[in-house]
Amino acid sequence: MQRYKLIIAYRGTRYHGWQRQAWLDTYKGGPRPDDGSGIPTIQEIVTRAIQSVVKHPVTLVGSSRTDAGVHAKGQVAHFDTDQVQIPPRGLRRAANARLPEDILIRGIEPVSAEFDAVASVQSKRYQYFIWNAEDRPVFFADLAFHRFQKPLDVDAMRAAAGLLVGTHDFASFARPGHGRDNTVRTVHDCSVSSRGPRIVIGVEGSGFLWNMVRIIAGTLIEVGLGRFRADQIPAMLAAKDRRAAGQTAPAHGLFLQWIRLKDDRSQLTG
Amino acid sequence: MQRYKLIIAYRGTRYHGWQRQAWLDTYKGGPRPDDGSGIPTIQEIVTRAIQSVVKHPVTLVGSSRTDAGVHAKGQVAHFDTDQVQIPPRGLRRAANARLPEDILIRGIEPVSAEFDAVASVQSKRYQYFIWNAEDRPVFFADLAFHRFQKPLDVDAMRAAAGLLVGTHDFASFARPGHGRDNTVRTVHDCSVSSRGPRIVIGVEGSGFLWNMVRIIAGTLIEVGLGRFRADQIPAMLAAKDRRAAGQTAPAHGLFLQWIRLKDDRSQLTG
Repeated sequence: MQRYKLIIAYRGTRYHGWQRQAWLDTYKGGPRPDDGSGIPTIQEIVTRAIQSVVKHPVTLVGSSRTDAGVHAKGQVAHFDTDQVQIPPRGLRRAANARLPEDILIRGIEPVSAEFDAVASVQSKRYQYFIWNAEDRPVFFADLAFHRFQKPLDVDAMRAAAGLLVGTHDFASFARPGHGRDNTVRTVHDCSVSSRGPRIVIGVEGSGFLWNMVRIIAGTLIEVGLGRFRADQIPAMLAAKDRRAAGQTAPAHGLFLQWIRLKDDRSQLTG
Repeated sequence: MQRYKLIIAYRGTRYHGWQRQAWLDTYKGGPRPDDGSGIPTIQEIVTRAIQSVVKHPVTLVGSSRTDAGVHAKGQVAHFDTDQVQIPPRGLRRAANARLPEDILIRGIEPVSAEFDAVASVQSKRYQYFIWNAEDRPVFFADLAFHRFQKPLDVDAMRAAAGLLVGTHDFASFARPGHGRDNTVRTVHDCSVSSRGPRIVIGVEGSGFLWNMVRIIAGTLIEVGLGRFRADQIPAMLAAKDRRAAGQTAPAHGLFLQWIRLKDDRSQLTG
């Protein structure tokens, strides 16, 4: 038995997320109910591609359950197989040949049985892309959030982002029904960069609550619009109430950029 | 009666080209037969958006009949209307609000009745995007041609491109059935640039034959692969036979970049 680690990139537009989420609120164990959408998940498609190569059922465990429409440059996953005759490079090529054009296995390597795509995560970084111009982004409409009532105040957004860095209770920045008892998380970095009409919010942390990055992005956008002041961020955190923070920005602007793994010399996946 | 000039950008992926092409070989005038695909054309969608604003039927004439899957940064079109109360900026905004996210009217302005989107064209520039890396372009699979057997020889492609510049009979670089008696065209510029895995072929000319840029791109790719030598280009031109040139590169790598119009101070559309 050999465990393999995968690094996967995908455009999430056509998929129902990494795995189905609709059951999260009511899930009590047992088989996952079909949500009836008929739209496959990325996990299902990658699992099928690998199974078609190794010729036995596999369980693919992903580091991050990205929502429907969310993209990834460096998702991490693992699976086990007895099929060890195929070298990793051949396995990667064969699986990629069975994947659609918007999903790619960027890397595959054998790891020890102690490696776990969920437990071995040290930190993750997400990016949120905003297109802040009147003309919409015709060629990447599904890869950035088009927002233009007026130019966003990037300096104010940056000041607000700095106030989110650190260890805080992020209950105000979590979608209700997230199912976590402890909502304290550490954000290592929260930065805002801009170049022409493109604004990118980068958020790095040890762990994230449900929709946390999208609520951070939506809140920073409202700061950029002048609806909130940057110095209101501490009060939003202190409220521990979802209604205290801003709107949830749409899924299609969000990218899982990379995942840093414990005891991993290659360090970054993205 | 007022004539308006439009500059339009679109991602061609979901559409049946600017207008239906299937009838070209047999067209003898009269109404265009429906090709039964059910997929709309960009011309149809923009026409409907404008009609919905001006409240009367319009005929939208485009400068370039881009094929299915081809994109445009600066298509030009014109239409006439009696509805002159709406200022151009309001017309543009109202029409854009009625267009899908992958089509955008970038500019709209009143022009004299002598302006004609076909007859007023002085030159056009197309770009052909190639992704020359083993890993496919996950986030823009429909915006570049993924070609990687090996790294392309860009210097050889550039030498071959230079030999296409000038006034030549491009019969070898036209899809049979193009319906033109005169296949002599002038190419003002044919250049190849590369940055990392991205290779861009730019072709500027006074006019183009059917599939001419895609056959140029396909031929330059075969030069880059070593299947043809650059110095074979003159013999390809001299043959005046489609079989003498290389393959037709797929539509989805092609962008209509801009159109230069006669007596137009703004010069470029893209």
